[in-house]
Amino acid sequence: MRPEDLVFASRFDGISGSAIREIFKLLAVPGMISFAGGNPSPESFQCDLCAELARELLSSKGKVLLQYGATEGYLPLKEALVPYIRESFQVEATTDTLLPTTGSTQGMDLLCKALINPGDAIIVEDPTFLGNMQCMKLYEARLVPVPSDEEGMDTDKLEEAILREHPKMIYVIPTFQNPTGRTLSLERRKKIAALAEKYGVVVAEDDPYRDLRYKGEALESIKHFDKAGMVALLGSFSKVISPGLRVGFLCADPLILRKCTIGKQSSDVHTALLNQAIVAEYLRRDLLRPHVAEICAMYKKQMEAMLEGLSHCAGIESYTRPEGGLFIFAALKEGMDAKEKMMKCVEKGAAYVPGTHFYAFGGHENTLRLNFSMSSVEEIARGMAILDSVFGA
Amino acid sequence: MRPEDLVFASRFDGISGSAIREIFKLLAVPGMISFAGGNPSPESFQCDLCAELARELLSSKGKVLLQYGATEGYLPLKEALVPYIRESFQVEATTDTLLPTTGSTQGMDLLCKALINPGDAIIVEDPTFLGNMQCMKLYEARLVPVPSDEEGMDTDKLEEAILREHPKMIYVIPTFQNPTGRTLSLERRKKIAALAEKYGVVVAEDDPYRDLRYKGEALESIKHFDKAGMVALLGSFSKVISPGLRVGFLCADPLILRKCTIGKQSSDVHTALLNQAIVAEYLRRDLLRPHVAEICAMYKKQMEAMLEGLSHCAGIESYTRPEGGLFIFAALKEGMDAKEKMMKCVEKGAAYVPGTHFYAFGGHENTLRLNFSMSSVEEIARGMAILDSVFGA
Repeated sequence: MRPEDLVFASRFDGISGSAIREIFKLLAVPGMISFAGGNPSPESFQCDLCAELARELLSSKGKVLLQYGATEGYLPLKEALVPYIRESFQVEATTDTLLPTTGSTQGMDLLCKALINPGDAIIVEDPTFLGNMQCMKLYEARLVPVPSDEEGMDTDKLEEAILREHPKMIYVIPTFQNPTGRTLSLERRKKIAALAEKYGVVVAEDDPYRDLRYKGEALESIKHFDKAGMVALLGSFSKVISPGLRVGFLCADPLILRKCTIGKQSSDVHTALLNQAIVAEYLRRDLLRPHVAEICAMYKKQMEAMLEGLSHCAGIESYTRPEGGLFIFAALKEGMDAKEKMMKCVEKGAAYVPGTHFYAFGGHENTLRLNFSMSSVEEIARGMAILDSVFGA
Repeated sequence: MRPEDLVFASRFDGISGSAIREIFKLLAVPGMISFAGGNPSPESFQCDLCAELARELLSSKGKVLLQYGATEGYLPLKEALVPYIRESFQVEATTDTLLPTTGSTQGMDLLCKALINPGDAIIVEDPTFLGNMQCMKLYEARLVPVPSDEEGMDTDKLEEAILREHPKMIYVIPTFQNPTGRTLSLERRKKIAALAEKYGVVVAEDDPYRDLRYKGEALESIKHFDKAGMVALLGSFSKVISPGLRVGFLCADPLILRKCTIGKQSSDVHTALLNQAIVAEYLRRDLLRPHVAEICAMYKKQMEAMLEGLSHCAGIESYTRPEGGLFIFAALKEGMDAKEKMMKCVEKGAAYVPGTHFYAFGGHENTLRLNFSMSSVEEIARGMAILDSVFGA
């Protein structure tokens, strides 16, 4: 027998890898202006600082950092996370409620591992982040989309869905959501925390963009309003320090965290220690705050350039006006197909992701997600001109 | 509702975290001579070299290494792995048959994710590595132990078990096995590759200790004899460069690797790029080979000191005589309890792991695993004297 005759695990039924990865292959053309990705700008990486931190850390603590570490995480990072989470998320964490993870992607994977049996329902915003929908599908969860509006997930519809579907988990990206860029209102944050307690549903609060705020006031996290311990907060340093380092964290009740930790033992034993230590130094030396201020100043201009382009772009029916993050979500006039238009844009040298991919059950063919972090203000103007010409044709 | 009322996923039924982790908590006493762990010696870490490599890499390639990478792995590492795997494993890999993983632990997790449905049988050596048994249990696999002798897994009993249990996978550590230190004979390697093809069972060949050979001749890997593509080779740099960096690899047929890659997308997106790049430099600059020679010279003396101690240790009925690796497996006289004796040893300042934990269904209470990599020759002599006094009492 050969591998072509193998029967793979049923969790892969209907899963063929991320659809938007296929789009990314189209973009490997020099000069392509890509609004398709979700990467932070390479301009935001502090290469020399990271080089110096890595050197210092390995020179002074190499015997610890190169050895096996605890699955529970590198203690100096956990200690440095406590004040960071207090300030950024308005949450009182302790080292017992924190688990460093290999990116927040792993945090989501571990929460599903801890909680989801095949067939269990997970409520997701419609649209939402594709990568984590794939994660849920690999745990054979039943995705239950709940619509969102300008204030984020509709909490009336959420309560109806909870009563109807008895979900195990609610997955929500409250701040500068992917793909919409929208922010969940304060009232709805309180409401979601209350619903989680009332109905016994764990909330996976995925908040990687929160520090990238270009205007308006920061809102308390859902976890801030969580008296019962039913909210698990997923954090990431991918958007503000580096995605390549793969460091995020899970902040959750110790009982939930205990299952995630056991799950992590056989996922990767622990997150790489050097990587945890570099992030710890960013926090301990107060390097993150001034760095975030610089990134925000840069991204703010890029977001404004894109909003300006959208304001006079042909064919555009509506678009979101985020206060931060990496994405704007737009709708073409009813009947227009963003997938078909995308191929024409790519021919002319600009790309985006059709919004349909972010909806649990597809549809919404007239929508598109636009990323502004990977393009300069000048490239954004040129790219938006291409979209204008294609959408207006 | 609160977390104490949550029903966790059924994959955790009967799983309480690694039993030997509880033992390790006993050992956090200054001066304790521990034969319990499986860590490489901190003396084997090249801290200054790693510091310099990290600095150079981030200075010169930071914009790439700090950005998101491909799930499929960092190409310079994959290219450097090809000649390494040819030389060390006698296997002709290509970049299409290689997937860098976050430690070989993740390689095992991804193979289970790709192949195992709840209730599927996996054949394991009896005894075998505890951590990967926990991984299999979290995929709700049915573990089928097959006994091993001086030449490793008994392949006649293996074939009987295949015919009886129709397993999906065979898990084997062919070289300097954990916990026994034994090496699978060449004939049995060929036989396992042939059985895999004949019966359509995937072999997970976990070979992290292969480069730590202190005497005798290297044997070809099982994968070397794999004509059908049914053997998946798990490799690791944890024992020869650093476990803290979390870099391993999976070498398998592209069809199997494709499922593992999709599974990895939602596990951690990709293995941290800096860590992949450090390992790539070790291979590209031929730094690994001389380093391994040095480590082997050190570990050889430690292994010999432990074998010498065992040769006149009271109460010992038998023990293995490995040609490399990190472990020796010993049996006390019938009726003696290695668990009970361990508590007495710990009181006197020396520790090991009772062998019963490494057997899929327990038993074998008179066995123990001894690690020699974490103790100096002098500590080994003192520790063995403690064992002698306790076992002889």
